[in-house]
Amino acid sequence: MENTETPVTVIGLGLMGQALAGAFLKAGHPTTVWNRTTSKADRLVAEGARLAPTVADALAASSLAILCVTDYPAVYELLDGSEIDLAGTTLINLTSGSSAQAREAARWAGQRGAHYLDGAIMAIPPAIGTAEAVILHSGPQPDFDAHKPTLDALGTVTYLGADHGLASLYDVAGLAMMWSVLNAWLQGTALLRTAGVDAATYAPFARQIAAGVAEWLPGYAEQIDSGSFPAEVSALETDARAMAHLIEESEAVGVNAELPQLIKAMADRAIAAGHGGEQYPVLIEEFGKPRGA
Amino acid sequence: MENTETPVTVIGLGLMGQALAGAFLKAGHPTTVWNRTTSKADRLVAEGARLAPTVADALAASSLAILCVTDYPAVYELLDGSEIDLAGTTLINLTSGSSAQAREAARWAGQRGAHYLDGAIMAIPPAIGTAEAVILHSGPQPDFDAHKPTLDALGTVTYLGADHGLASLYDVAGLAMMWSVLNAWLQGTALLRTAGVDAATYAPFARQIAAGVAEWLPGYAEQIDSGSFPAEVSALETDARAMAHLIEESEAVGVNAELPQLIKAMADRAIAAGHGGEQYPVLIEEFGKPRGA
Ligand SMILES: NC(=O)c1ccc[n+]([C@@H]2O[C@H](COP(=O)([O-])OP(=O)(O)OC[C@H]3O[C@@H](n4cnc5c(N)ncnc54)[C@H](OP(=O)(O)O)[C@@H]3O)[C@@H](O)[C@H]2O)c1
Ligand SMILES: NC(=O)c1ccc[n+]([C@@H]2O[C@H](COP(=O)([O-])OP(=O)(O)OC[C@H]3O[C@@H](n4cnc5c(N)ncnc54)[C@H](OP(=O)(O)O)[C@@H]3O)[C@@H](O)[C@H]2O)c1
Repeated sequence: MENTETPVTVIGLGLMGQALAGAFLKAGHPTTVWNRTTSKADRLVAEGARLAPTVADALAASSLAILCVTDYPAVYELLDGSEIDLAGTTLINLTSGSSAQAREAARWAGQRGAHYLDGAIMAIPPAIGTAEAVILHSGPQPDFDAHKPTLDALGTVTYLGADHGLASLYDVAGLAMMWSVLNAWLQGTALLRTAGVDAATYAPFARQIAAGVAEWLPGYAEQIDSGSFPAEVSALETDARAMAHLIEESEAVGVNAELPQLIKAMADRAIAAGHGGEQYPVLIEEFGKPRGA
Repeated sequence: MENTETPVTVIGLGLMGQALAGAFLKAGHPTTVWNRTTSKADRLVAEGARLAPTVADALAASSLAILCVTDYPAVYELLDGSEIDLAGTTLINLTSGSSAQAREAARWAGQRGAHYLDGAIMAIPPAIGTAEAVILHSGPQPDFDAHKPTLDALGTVTYLGADHGLASLYDVAGLAMMWSVLNAWLQGTALLRTAGVDAATYAPFARQIAAGVAEWLPGYAEQIDSGSFPAEVSALETDARAMAHLIEESEAVGVNAELPQLIKAMADRAIAAGHGGEQYPVLIEEFGKPRGA
């Protein structure tokens, strides 16, 4: 029986690249693979992948190539050879990097006649191929639209905009949210443990607060976009008084107070700048300024 | 028509005390009020409240008294007079304070023959009387159960446990979650604004991540309670590499990097302590240690 799915090439078969190639194979795409260490292709070849002898051959096999290696220097090392012809190829680079690296790679690829999309994978390898795996893309929309039906094999595939830097910016922003929710939960868990409350008892409360506050964000975003922060719900000064309680309580029961102190330091600076009577999102001015160790 | 609802006394008629007394009145409870500055009772008296001439009289009017003043010293100042008889009265203290202050107040009230519950209000005054107003209580369960039907007039009334310190611990833990979600959202909003993405465009993404991570907490709590942190989803070392990207990206686009740096510093300490191959909740050991400026 002839395979009617679009052919695809996957370059880089680390933990993530193997998962990506496996998902394409499972969805019926003729899949060509290449990896520096050839043995990492063995399982995929057994599942029906074709192992290309060279990167140039792997790129020639399909008009769509997915790159997933350690970092951007590795991408250039792979693609910079004189025997490599990128003209007309669509490269989708799912390697982690910065927005500046993504924009630079897009320029580099454009000069060689390639279509280029940058991507970021917000998932672990075992989730690839399920709806749980969110994969962000940025670059020219027509290039995304042309390949979305193929990319759908990987998970929940999202397009963010034409600026190639967007995928990595959304990626790190999303991770900052993830670690922040986890850290706040750990702070609360540590506080409650001093009163003999176990983590399982406290967790549903933390979940409810996090999910509830998440619902406020679109409304608060309107204040930021309008640049006006009336204290409809509460004033930053009121928050700062409660932040002092959080610090005092953390210190009194002997848990780490660094996160509470950072929270209060940010608010205190905004209050010192005259924003104590305004609402929390006015802190965007502090977050938007370069600062840090 | 005779009023069959339970009588209640509210002492302290600041912004919050007025909202509490107003909600009791609206629910039909005969409500006695007292405030140091008498004029703050005017609106409530017009709505049917009885203004007591003294604190002693206010306490004598109902077997249930709600206290809501600035802080614990104000509570003692109010209740410490020789003319005050607390025997048999149930005091519910909704004044903000620490877990130690709550436990001390419970001892103090117990010595005077009062039933004592400590509470914390996770709401702003306009929300009082609606389900949105979460009010936490801790202390002897029979005292809470006896008055829950009356307290229900105030909002979503929750019982946490016999330790009087629990209400204030849950309160500050919940606030830490609130500020952390907001701060992570502001960090992301600041990052995305450097690429011309407005806050309203980014907010739904942040909301989705926060709500999604909230769902992990009960499962992660099991790791903490069992004291075993296998890297089922990802190892802390892998997180730390992505944390470095968050810091680099923040610095490169010129936004505040303090929150990213704190996130990484906590993880780095756990990795230095030998936990790099374990999963994120192993950080509870760092959060549980006294540390801070
Ligand atoms: N794993 C995850 O959970 C996850 C999640 C989201 C994003 N990511 C991102 O996905 C990318 C790959 O991650 P991974 O987990 O697959 O990493 P990995 O298992 O360490 O694999 C790294 C891959 O890069 C290749 N490589 C590195 N340097 C190279 C070079 N100079 N020339 C040619 N090939 C080179 C390796 O080839 P060899 O096999 O020959 O060493 C291997 O295929 C990274 O950017 C990572 O941040 C991973
Ligand atoms: N407002 C909120 O959004 C909110 C939310 C959650 C929790 N809370 C907590 O609720 C409590 C009250 O807050 P609030 O907003 O109502 O504050 P507020 O408007 O400033 O009112 C303070 C109240 O305390 C009284 N008071 C202060 N010191 C006193 C003393 N030594 N003797 C007698 N009375 C004294 C004041 O009496 P006078 O009128 O005579 O000055 C007034 O009734 C605080 O612990 C606050 O943290 C408030």
